[in-house]
Amino acid sequence: MSTEFKTIGILGKSSDPKIADTLKTLYQCLKPRYQISIDSGSAQLIPDFSGNIQPLKNLAQHCDVLIVVGGDGTFLSAARIASVCNIPLIGINLGRLGFLVDISPAELETKLNAILQGNYRKEKRSLLRTKIIRDTHVIHEETAVNEVVIHRWVTPSMIELITTIDGVYLNTQRSDGLIISTPTGSTAYSLSAGGPIIHPALDALLLVPLNPHTLSNRPIVINDSSEIEINFIKTNEINAQVTCDHIAIPDVLISDTILIKKDPKPITILHPENHEFFHTLRNKLNWSGGYPI
Amino acid sequence: MSTEFKTIGILGKSSDPKIADTLKTLYQCLKPRYQISIDSGSAQLIPDFSGNIQPLKNLAQHCDVLIVVGGDGTFLSAARIASVCNIPLIGINLGRLGFLVDISPAELETKLNAILQGNYRKEKRSLLRTKIIRDTHVIHEETAVNEVVIHRWVTPSMIELITTIDGVYLNTQRSDGLIISTPTGSTAYSLSAGGPIIHPALDALLLVPLNPHTLSNRPIVINDSSEIEINFIKTNEINAQVTCDHIAIPDVLISDTILIKKDPKPITILHPENHEFFHTLRNKLNWSGGYPI
Amino acid sequence: MSTEFKTIGILGKSSDPKIADTLKTLYQCLKPRYQISIDSGSAQLIPDFSGNIQPLKNLAQHCDVLIVVGGDGTFLSAARIASVCNIPLIGINLGRLGFLVDISPAELETKLNAILQGNYRKEKRSLLRTKIIRDTHVIHEETAVNEVVIHRWVTPSMIELITTIDGVYLNTQRSDGLIISTPTGSTAYSLSAGGPIIHPALDALLLVPLNPHTLSNRPIVINDSSEIEINFIKTNEINAQVTCDHIAIPDVLISDTILIKKDPKPITILHPENHEFFHTLRNKLNWSGGYPI
Amino acid sequence: MSTEFKTIGILGKSSDPKIADTLKTLYQCLKPRYQISIDSGSAQLIPDFSGNIQPLKNLAQHCDVLIVVGGDGTFLSAARIASVCNIPLIGINLGRLGFLVDISPAELETKLNAILQGNYRKEKRSLLRTKIIRDTHVIHEETAVNEVVIHRWVTPSMIELITTIDGVYLNTQRSDGLIISTPTGSTAYSLSAGGPIIHPALDALLLVPLNPHTLSNRPIVINDSSEIEINFIKTNEINAQVTCDHIAIPDVLISDTILIKKDPKPITILHPENHEFFHTLRNKLNWSGGYPI
Repeated sequence: MSTEFKTIGILGKSSDPKIADTLKTLYQCLKPRYQISIDSGSAQLIPDFSGNIQPLKNLAQHCDVLIVVGGDGTFLSAARIASVCNIPLIGINLGRLGFLVDISPAELETKLNAILQGNYRKEKRSLLRTKIIRDTHVIHEETAVNEVVIHRWVTPSMIELITTIDGVYLNTQRSDGLIISTPTGSTAYSLSAGGPIIHPALDALLLVPLNPHTLSNRPIVINDSSEIEINFIKTNEINAQVTCDHIAIPDVLISDTILIKKDPKPITILHPENHEFFHTLRNKLNWSGGYPI
Repeated sequence: MSTEFKTIGILGKSSDPKIADTLKTLYQCLKPRYQISIDSGSAQLIPDFSGNIQPLKNLAQHCDVLIVVGGDGTFLSAARIASVCNIPLIGINLGRLGFLVDISPAELETKLNAILQGNYRKEKRSLLRTKIIRDTHVIHEETAVNEVVIHRWVTPSMIELITTIDGVYLNTQRSDGLIISTPTGSTAYSLSAGGPIIHPALDALLLVPLNPHTLSNRPIVINDSSEIEINFIKTNEINAQVTCDHIAIPDVLISDTILIKKDPKPITILHPENHEFFHTLRNKLNWSGGYPI
Repeated sequence: MSTEFKTIGILGKSSDPKIADTLKTLYQCLKPRYQISIDSGSAQLIPDFSGNIQPLKNLAQHCDVLIVVGGDGTFLSAARIASVCNIPLIGINLGRLGFLVDISPAELETKLNAILQGNYRKEKRSLLRTKIIRDTHVIHEETAVNEVVIHRWVTPSMIELITTIDGVYLNTQRSDGLIISTPTGSTAYSLSAGGPIIHPALDALLLVPLNPHTLSNRPIVINDSSEIEINFIKTNEINAQVTCDHIAIPDVLISDTILIKKDPKPITILHPENHEFFHTLRNKLNWSGGYPI
Repeated sequence: MSTEFKTIGILGKSSDPKIADTLKTLYQCLKPRYQISIDSGSAQLIPDFSGNIQPLKNLAQHCDVLIVVGGDGTFLSAARIASVCNIPLIGINLGRLGFLVDISPAELETKLNAILQGNYRKEKRSLLRTKIIRDTHVIHEETAVNEVVIHRWVTPSMIELITTIDGVYLNTQRSDGLIISTPTGSTAYSLSAGGPIIHPALDALLLVPLNPHTLSNRPIVINDSSEIEINFIKTNEINAQVTCDHIAIPDVLISDTILIKKDPKPITILHPENHEFFHTLRNKLNWSGGYPI
């Protein structure tokens, strides 16, 4: 038996009423063999819990692997925490397959045991690091797993963004905004905005304009070693917002510069050995069916 | 000579520095034969102006036809004013053809004289009337020439809208919002959001979802006799805004109902006799060219 | 009881092995009260059939209403036959809801009886009439319920089409072809090519370019009173095909002119009284679900 | 001065009447310092030509660099020839900038001289290698610079393709076909079909479905180390064609398997030192302009 993992962290979407049973099963399954750290919300849903209770932000520091129970949204939060400590993540859903939470409650025991015994498929996923620059100083930094979005804010009009990639001018676009997405994010908001699906193993970044005024503005895929710089066309007022995985960076000014680059620390996901991205894709996008004439 | 028009109103985009010459030419051209009412901003740009100066909102009440000088945006403002008084509009651009302002400064004298002498192509364009309903009362009404947009506001997340058409449930969509557009608006914001082009003579309304979560949500074209009702999925906070031609309706609550219907009063545009919508379309969308491989 | 219908026609997709049970049920249900005409393929699947057997093309001449059993494709064929005789159609599916065949086998007896007793929702659907003109003569005419497609054929290159609407030049497009669709066809091939959904009650035609070279070429919706004329840019060889509901018009030459106009004879569909187009739409496009993040 | 290039090949689009002047200028410019090989069609347009005339397919074997004069289409043909011999290419257009032919006749002397003296920006572009497999034998192989297209052929109906990537099943799609494109091809036919723009420096392949029946079928970007296998759903007749850069592979059967993989030999393009892909992109897609409201 593998001794790779001794302490296991559990982070659950404790606001979801469906989660209690899955958390209890998970705890029973892990208790005999591992030390367990858990977030306080999830701990309350396991009556006989006797492990280590940690506030969310400390959880990753106290474990060798972090099991996330919930939806893809829960996984995104966990991943931003885990990336700092460089520990791998395992995702368990609550009955509905996610792109990131790929183990169902029904197969929890068999699949999870296999993974914890060392039989897994390891996958690296790159994150994005966003810096807000004001007067040559970095005044804010934030990490995103899916995407950074710069979009119009508290204005009924389109905004104008100037995009430069590795110091080379790309374009000035008038639009509702711009998504900069990782391959992971290509199946999230970016897909709604008309972006392509990017395989997670590709070292790429994706730029997707939001409802661009110029009809030939199209999604662009570039190397993920590139640094993207966004500036605003100056107007009288703040009219844009920057979000990382849909969490807003506060107080961005129209005169600020936004720098976006691959985060030097990727996250590691441990999947069951038979995991295939294309299988999840077919399932999530209903490709088996289609609408027949 | 036609005696159809005796008093002519002029409404200019006086903030545009290019407008002075066109206004002067226009005034010289009209002064000998017509009484002229003008908005105060434009009057100041015509040194020898001796006609009737009116505040914007009264202008349409003092004339038989309203000449708009500027871009399509200026025309939209003028059209909302003109629709109340039922007077026709003529659009003059400042060098760049618009969908609505189709007479260029260079052809002002010949084309405008022809129109004022009765040689024109008359076109009706429908407007949209939006009502905000709170507790069975209409608390706000607004008119739009191009489109009504219900979009997410001060929230980084998608919103959920329930759409009903003539009392029949259409769908509940999770998206950045929804555009309800006239045929006139189909070549404006709606086109950026992936909507089709609708010929102005078609009695239709267009619903275009903004970045919908469900990939099979598509633009829908319906009869313009229909009434569209939009309700929000209740959440804890106000997170949407309603705009008419990009002007916000203030203080819409999450519990309000939005009703959108064709305005009973259309506007009338007088075009040069050789005006063709398809010609404007080719010009504006650069169809002559294309990107050759 | 209504005496509107005395003789009922049945046209079945006899190539589908699932159809026999539905045909037998249908026959048992109708036999006591109506005279029945049926196509010969379907007759063979009803062991005790004792009515009137007709070749397909004569079927519509011997009945007051035509019941179609199969998919939307079967309905299209039946509709082209029925339009000549001006008899109404009723659509029964084989377990999978269609846009046109909206009665399921399970609800056959109750819904069909209600309709035949006069409790129906009557709907007109326009068809397209295509004429191929050579040297000022009409050399071929064909009817389509869904769409006419002019597409490249036996050539690996794009074709160039010149489109004129009511004598007014629209554009010259380089593409894989052009779809001209009815509202009925807007949920078929046109939807795959990026066209909008058009409500069946709207008097409209839809032009959808197939992979156009110019990125601003977009679907266009026009009034269905318009006549569309298509000509080819002359090249050395025949390189395009014209299809009506996916059936090819033979031997079209590069020098021929294609005229497309609403057929003066619409078809009439009898739906159950609670039929709603939007309900079918939600069902067929999986709108209840969507892919959740 | 660089002595890297001694013999220079010239391949011109001799069918284009505009080419003669450019060829003459080019010859005058090169004659004093280099040995020149040229295709026979182009040789005839240079009255005083005294170099080495070669049939097209031998041209690349007799030179150190191949200068292509024409459009992107001419460059594609040249690139397939050059890839075998591993010689670099330089592209000169005939007055209209191409994605591949980036030197204009007006700047021919200065830019070309700089390149030939060693001041260039070198760029590798990957090609695709397509193999047709029948009964475990490779019966045909072909190279493409832009894209391989598998599309319906001599049938008015959609086809069904089964796609497997590196042995993992992707999907079965019903559509008009499938484009497999290089980054180079992402700005060609693929763009018309809704594909994203891929930066030429990204090691990626792009799969773009042509008018897919299932609306959630979307372009997919994968690593260019992957092998793509396409099989047809068996039907009664041959109904698909495989093209490489729009040149058809003859006699593909419905029972054949199509394998597509990056060609082990890339091509090398020599650009002027200030060449930027984004600059060409803005120019070709008219991004400076757009259609303003």
